[in-house]
Amino acid sequence: MAAPVDIPVALLGYGTVGASVDRLLRESADDIERATGHRLRVVRALVRDPARERAYGPPDGVLTSSFAEISGDASIGLVAEVMGGIEPTGGYVLELLRAGKSVVSANKQLIARRGADLFAAASERGVQLRFEASVCAAIPVVKVLREALIVTNVHRVLGIVNGTTNFVLTRMEQGADYTEALAEAQRLGYAEADPTEDVSGLDAAAKMAILATVAFGGRVALDDVLVEGIDGLRTEYVRAAADLGMVVRLIGAATLVDGRYDVRVQPAFVHRNHPLAGVEGAFNAVMLQGDAIREITLEGPGAGGIETASAVVADLVSIVGTEGTGFLQDDPVRRTLERLPPGEIRSEFYVHLEVEDRSGVLAHVAEQLALAGVSIARLTQRETESGAVLDLVTHECAAGAIGAAVEALERLGEVQGRPAVLRVISERGV
Amino acid sequence: MAAPVDIPVALLGYGTVGASVDRLLRESADDIERATGHRLRVVRALVRDPARERAYGPPDGVLTSSFAEISGDASIGLVAEVMGGIEPTGGYVLELLRAGKSVVSANKQLIARRGADLFAAASERGVQLRFEASVCAAIPVVKVLREALIVTNVHRVLGIVNGTTNFVLTRMEQGADYTEALAEAQRLGYAEADPTEDVSGLDAAAKMAILATVAFGGRVALDDVLVEGIDGLRTEYVRAAADLGMVVRLIGAATLVDGRYDVRVQPAFVHRNHPLAGVEGAFNAVMLQGDAIREITLEGPGAGGIETASAVVADLVSIVGTEGTGFLQDDPVRRTLERLPPGEIRSEFYVHLEVEDRSGVLAHVAEQLALAGVSIARLTQRETESGAVLDLVTHECAAGAIGAAVEALERLGEVQGRPAVLRVISERGV
Repeated sequence: MAAPVDIPVALLGYGTVGASVDRLLRESADDIERATGHRLRVVRALVRDPARERAYGPPDGVLTSSFAEISGDASIGLVAEVMGGIEPTGGYVLELLRAGKSVVSANKQLIARRGADLFAAASERGVQLRFEASVCAAIPVVKVLREALIVTNVHRVLGIVNGTTNFVLTRMEQGADYTEALAEAQRLGYAEADPTEDVSGLDAAAKMAILATVAFGGRVALDDVLVEGIDGLRTEYVRAAADLGMVVRLIGAATLVDGRYDVRVQPAFVHRNHPLAGVEGAFNAVMLQGDAIREITLEGPGAGGIETASAVVADLVSIVGTEGTGFLQDDPVRRTLERLPPGEIRSEFYVHLEVEDRSGVLAHVAEQLALAGVSIARLTQRETESGAVLDLVTHECAAGAIGAAVEALERLGEVQGRPAVLRVISERGV
Repeated sequence: MAAPVDIPVALLGYGTVGASVDRLLRESADDIERATGHRLRVVRALVRDPARERAYGPPDGVLTSSFAEISGDASIGLVAEVMGGIEPTGGYVLELLRAGKSVVSANKQLIARRGADLFAAASERGVQLRFEASVCAAIPVVKVLREALIVTNVHRVLGIVNGTTNFVLTRMEQGADYTEALAEAQRLGYAEADPTEDVSGLDAAAKMAILATVAFGGRVALDDVLVEGIDGLRTEYVRAAADLGMVVRLIGAATLVDGRYDVRVQPAFVHRNHPLAGVEGAFNAVMLQGDAIREITLEGPGAGGIETASAVVADLVSIVGTEGTGFLQDDPVRRTLERLPPGEIRSEFYVHLEVEDRSGVLAHVAEQLALAGVSIARLTQRETESGAVLDLVTHECAAGAIGAAVEALERLGEVQGRPAVLRVISERGV
């Protein structure tokens, strides 16, 4: 082989993930050499303050605050970006790719927002950009999609891709309210002090944009992901789900329908016997449905420093192992896909209605649903202090039909407040 | 790139899997070319009778009954073995590897029994032998273990790796007895006319030997797998499991303890909240526990012609994509591991005892367990026509201790017949 036995690696960032990458490369040097014929060694790591005390420090001279020492060093052909953020990170990664260096990134926001430019730069220089760690940490969903399922036409990706919200929803299922559950998640380190990106669904949306892009082979922009978070999710919906034999989960769903895509992140009702319903606490899971495979589900820890680092190292090793072969070094995008109008996606839905408790209300509600083409699969009615509550599950219908039905219901004098609609995930690929 | 754009492929066998491989290679030729720069085309397929009518037939001249037309054709560098059996298959594969051709095999018995010789031949000629399809069809567990988890030191593999027995156990859980459930599996095509290899656990044992070999990097011979099937499993154990909040599953468990391995296939009690308990019907699932990843579970269809073919094609593509790089072309075995004496493995256990219904029996039973160092976590006693039944779950103890306790119990005059012992799977890696 032409390449040298020792391969110098640079890191952008040397926090929890960066230090773990350094350590894993040292500890597994023999395994990596057996797999690739090469030893990978961290020779430079970009940090803000090289002098700061670190729990796990690299040898003298590795830490640097000068990006030019990495970008301008022709001996470095491989860089792992583990610093996060969009800028200056994005500019750094672009410059590295343009300088002919392959890059591994653990940065979902960067890949989701700047993927097109970054992959274009990589293709132009014939270098690789890998990003397994940007989605669900150590769960190797990108490798499985790109390499193992290369001939299976994956047409649907369903995922629980945010551990914070899954922890909160699991706790709400056990009786906590939203505020309590979130506070507990923060106390245990599952949620950050500012949990906005998680609870708003934005974190999950970036991951789903990346997964949909890889699975469907067409670029899905972050702006084309329909996003609804769990902030404001009422405990009574969680209870209603339990009554129906379901659980509430923040579900990322990417679907390819006749060559058009729909990607969304929303709280949804999931039947208890569905594989995603069993995903508890801060775990993640992704279900891939395709022609030749029916469905494959991958479950595991979706976050964590060492877990993320293990995915970064696997990508570094894959780059070294496929150097010069052309194997999957390309942009995963190979076609232009259109977005399916959001109203056209079909599903069952849960609808929560608060109504006046007088005769004829149920008939009016049923009439409006029928007019919109929505038929009812299950319905329960119970009295409250101020009226009655209807919880119903529809048969499969278009999201647009349920939207129209809900608008019509809001206009009924007997319906109080805004009806709630959540998608129901019941089908399996089998 | 030096290699030609068109890569001729030969098949050994052209049954359901072989025909699907041929079809997938045609239908996905563009995807494969994008990933590797090459087009793979089936040019020869070894069959017993080329003249027989086939639902999906290749072009004229592809089918041949002469192995020499494949082994002696220097233009063929890549062969997929999808004919099954040990002989003449093993001899063919060895000859192909020695002739410098890379081989993909979907044959678990061949890889489990002859792996050492085959890998030695492959290494000697610098060609590849890949075998993803030999374990759990389209679930890419070998690729994930070898490439994604390269630095994670996987120390435990727990799997439901036989769909037939999982279907039978799922039906028994729903009320059927063993004979009814097996007959239904045969009617639905999940079990063969002679189901011995499945229900005896031998099929699962071959897969676990392969998975343990890959996960631990040391050769685990099929003879070193402790095997117990589900034939003869009594419905009352399934009911007892339900009473304890568990299900019975045929569990393959490979464990590395202080550098020594234990690999076994046995019916076991699995807690309902364990990810493997949710695997229903003919599906398979494999849970990988390791240092950097805690646990990753992969679930999907573990059998099927098109599913198996999709894994064969992914391996063919991976070979072409890594040609000449040295990346993971080697024998997964890199060290010699010793077997852990079977009595040393630790677990919780379920014990079923039929005893005479007279005072003092329970005290005697408890005494024998205590003498063997086994402590009881849960116990239920109920009367029967001929005496009483004790169902108990132990705290974690060595398998040898429970074996000694059961032998002592059998010698007690009050215990009727042979006590039953099943392992309990409750722990998660988290």
